[in-house]
Amino acid sequence: MVKHYALPMWAMILVILWVTTTAAEKTRPDPNDPHRMARWLVASSYWAVISTTSIHLKGAPWGNVADVSDGDPINSTGVPYFYLTSLDPTPQDLAANPNCSVTFSEDALGTCAEFDAEDPRCAKLTLYGQMEAIQPGNIGFDFAKNALFTKHPQMKGWPDDHKFNVYKLNIEDIFLVDYFGGPKKLNVTEYFQKV
Amino acid sequence: MVKHYALPMWAMILVILWVTTTAAEKTRPDPNDPHRMARWLVASSYWAVISTTSIHLKGAPWGNVADVSDGDPINSTGVPYFYLTSLDPTPQDLAANPNCSVTFSEDALGTCAEFDAEDPRCAKLTLYGQMEAIQPGNIGFDFAKNALFTKHPQMKGWPDDHKFNVYKLNIEDIFLVDYFGGPKKLNVTEYFQKV
Repeated sequence: MVKHYALPMWAMILVILWVTTTAAEKTRPDPNDPHRMARWLVASSYWAVISTTSIHLKGAPWGNVADVSDGDPINSTGVPYFYLTSLDPTPQDLAANPNCSVTFSEDALGTCAEFDAEDPRCAKLTLYGQMEAIQPGNIGFDFAKNALFTKHPQMKGWPDDHKFNVYKLNIEDIFLVDYFGGPKKLNVTEYFQKV
Repeated sequence: MVKHYALPMWAMILVILWVTTTAAEKTRPDPNDPHRMARWLVASSYWAVISTTSIHLKGAPWGNVADVSDGDPINSTGVPYFYLTSLDPTPQDLAANPNCSVTFSEDALGTCAEFDAEDPRCAKLTLYGQMEAIQPGNIGFDFAKNALFTKHPQMKGWPDDHKFNVYKLNIEDIFLVDYFGGPKKLNVTEYFQKV
């Protein structure tokens, strides 16, 4: 015979509150922990804007939308990986000058819907560094490609003749706004220590 | 006595289909009309990424999230207006070099949820040009500020001591991907002719 255990209503409410609060904490860190906020935004984002020095526009800054992944669901690394076709201007710019920025808005996640994207309470993150192409067979290629294809399963169907390459951003500078009081000075080492 | 009229089920379904299809047409243009697609994406977007030549990062390209508006709900102009605080790096960069890009992703609108942001069927638009500050009292200031504050009512509460200024992008080059087949060559005059 199967026994059934009933919880009183107040205990049920407490359990539901605990589960939802814990889930919310997992999804958005405390702004007092900006390194964790930056890691969370990178890990949660599906796309970002890569700003390059444009060869077509005589050295002007130029931004392009790109899918991003920093790992598989278990292993978030903090390193933004990309899968870019060399038919697009962005990889052409990067081949001439790898210095670039990658910009994320929390607005794209829907977790700050009550604020404008420009409001400091909606997190904004810009990572600056050098973009590096990772060739097949080289260290990190399989991890990076798996990180991208796990997060973006549609990539498996993207055409072979479009010359897609795997890229990683080697981060040198981190700019974050996630609350009032102006941008926060973040440390790259501390950023990578957060999980 | 109030009379009630009942529609047969097939007629109800037809009415619902007609209403939703018509609404969808109003919200997303045909990719065969790329100038209209570009105008629609600018008019519909609440934020974009401004890429500047960074003075803090020794001339590297640098992207930042900013609210955008191109008019009030009745008067879409195609001109992206911004309301930026000079405490942020972006206006500091623009003061030194007004050449910049403004990048939009259709993913932020939620109208291409079935595709990745990098998928060509999810529209990507980058406008390049010179950003111009519009001073109070000058031509276009009232229209621009009203366009911004109508679309982003929260701006009314942004602090006076943060030195916000109104800006407009003078568009010179348009890059659009909104379907298979690579970026489309758009004409700035034709872009402004579309409503």
